[in-house]
This record gives sequence, structure tokens and C-alpha cells, in this order.
Amino acid sequence: MKVSDGSAVCPSRLILEHMTSRWGVLVFAALLEGTYRFSELRREIGGVSEKMLAQTLQTLERDGFVHREAHPVIPPHVDYSLTELGREAASRVWALAGWAEEHVPQVLAARTGYDAARADAS
Amino acid sequence: MKVSDGSAVCPSRLILEHMTSRWGVLVFAALLEGTYRFSELRREIGGVSEKMLAQTLQTLERDGFVHREAHPVIPPHVDYSLTELGREAASRVWALAGWAEEHVPQVLAARTGYDAARADAS
Repeated sequence: MKVSDGSAVCPSRLILEHMTSRWGVLVFAALLEGTYRFSELRREIGGVSEKMLAQTLQTLERDGFVHREAHPVIPPHVDYSLTELGREAASRVWALAGWAEEHVPQVLAARTGYDAARADAS
Repeated sequence: MKVSDGSAVCPSRLILEHMTSRWGVLVFAALLEGTYRFSELRREIGGVSEKMLAQTLQTLERDGFVHREAHPVIPPHVDYSLTELGREAASRVWALAGWAEEHVPQVLAARTGYDAARADAS
């Protein structure tokens, strides 16, 4: 198997980047639980700027993962939810994030061993 | 569920970043097939600089995903393979990459629809 053509970044790579981006993962996690308004979502995720959250949502909406529904009420509000495709993507990404979370102790132990071996060698 | 504490980047986030980095994914894919020397791996992946590949391998080695074996022969050579933990990580990442690959047409169609809707609105 040739794993890369070595030149252009292929479309699936970009999709994977959007799905596993720092805020993308957290948006997916939140929306797996239900529909959110922008400000609720921002509160839920925490630590994300308005601009970054807006960009993340726009990217995920454009990829067909997030559905944006503007309600023409006063005051106006906008709901964000997962599309069917987005739910599938989010479940898979969140499973991977869960795997990483479960294996933090093993990775931290590996790092300690690696750093110790290099300290010994120098 | 609170999906983030909003302050520091948690350890699992960094692990996920290493696992899903552009070259990390391709290193995982190659090493799932077997053991490689550095130069072979670089040829297999294609388009990666020596420096970036070395950095990627070092990060994955430090995380305990990649095993580096230096053979004291003449000329010296170094083999890279997956650890047991790395094999598990690589399988999961590669499954996600495969999912993204399979859904490229749906995502591209969503983008076309999104862009068309915005063009109509402006």
C-alpha cells in the first residue's frame, strides 16, 4: 500500500483535520448530547474564543457535519445540532478521544521512561 | 458532561494530536504493515522531509507507540516498528482515516451545497 501520493494533501486528510481539530472534537462531544445555541455551546466547551468557535462551527457546517438553524424570533437565536453524517463522525472521533483518555497513564509512563533513558545517555 | 475544563490542554488532547497529526497518521499506516528503516519509511510515505519524519517518529516513540531499534552493524541501521500500544492506536486512527476517506463524496457534496447557498444569498 502506498500511503500517500506525497504531493497534495488529499481531501480525506482535510476532513480528518476538521474532525480532530482541538475545538472540533469538543464541539462534536457537546453536540452528541443535544442541540445548543451558540452562547450555550461556548459556555459548555469553555476556553474557546467567540471567533474560534464560530470558525469551527462554520467549517463543520460546510463539511455537512453540523446543522445551523436560525430562528426568526425576537430576540433571534441560532441552534446548532449534528446532522446524521455528523453524528457518525462525532461518535467515531469521540471514541478515539476516549481511547486516548484511557491510555494517558501508559503514554505518560512511556514518556518518563524515554526521558530517563536519554538523561542517562547524556 | 463537561467536555473541557477550558484552561490547560489536557494530556489526552496532546496524545490525540500526535496520533492524528498529518505525518503521524501516515507513519501509523506504514508501520501497521511491518518494520521499516528510516529511509524506507520516508520513501513509503513520500513528501515528508527528513526533519519532519524524524520529529514525528521521536514524538511517537516518546509516547510509547513506536519502537526504535538501532542495530550495531556496519553500516549501522535503525528499524522502526509499532509497540503493542502503538498497534492499537494505529488501528484506531487508521479506521477513522478510512471513514473520512469513504465519506469524501458526501462531504464534498455538502460543501458544494453550502457554498451555493451562500452565493445565492449574496
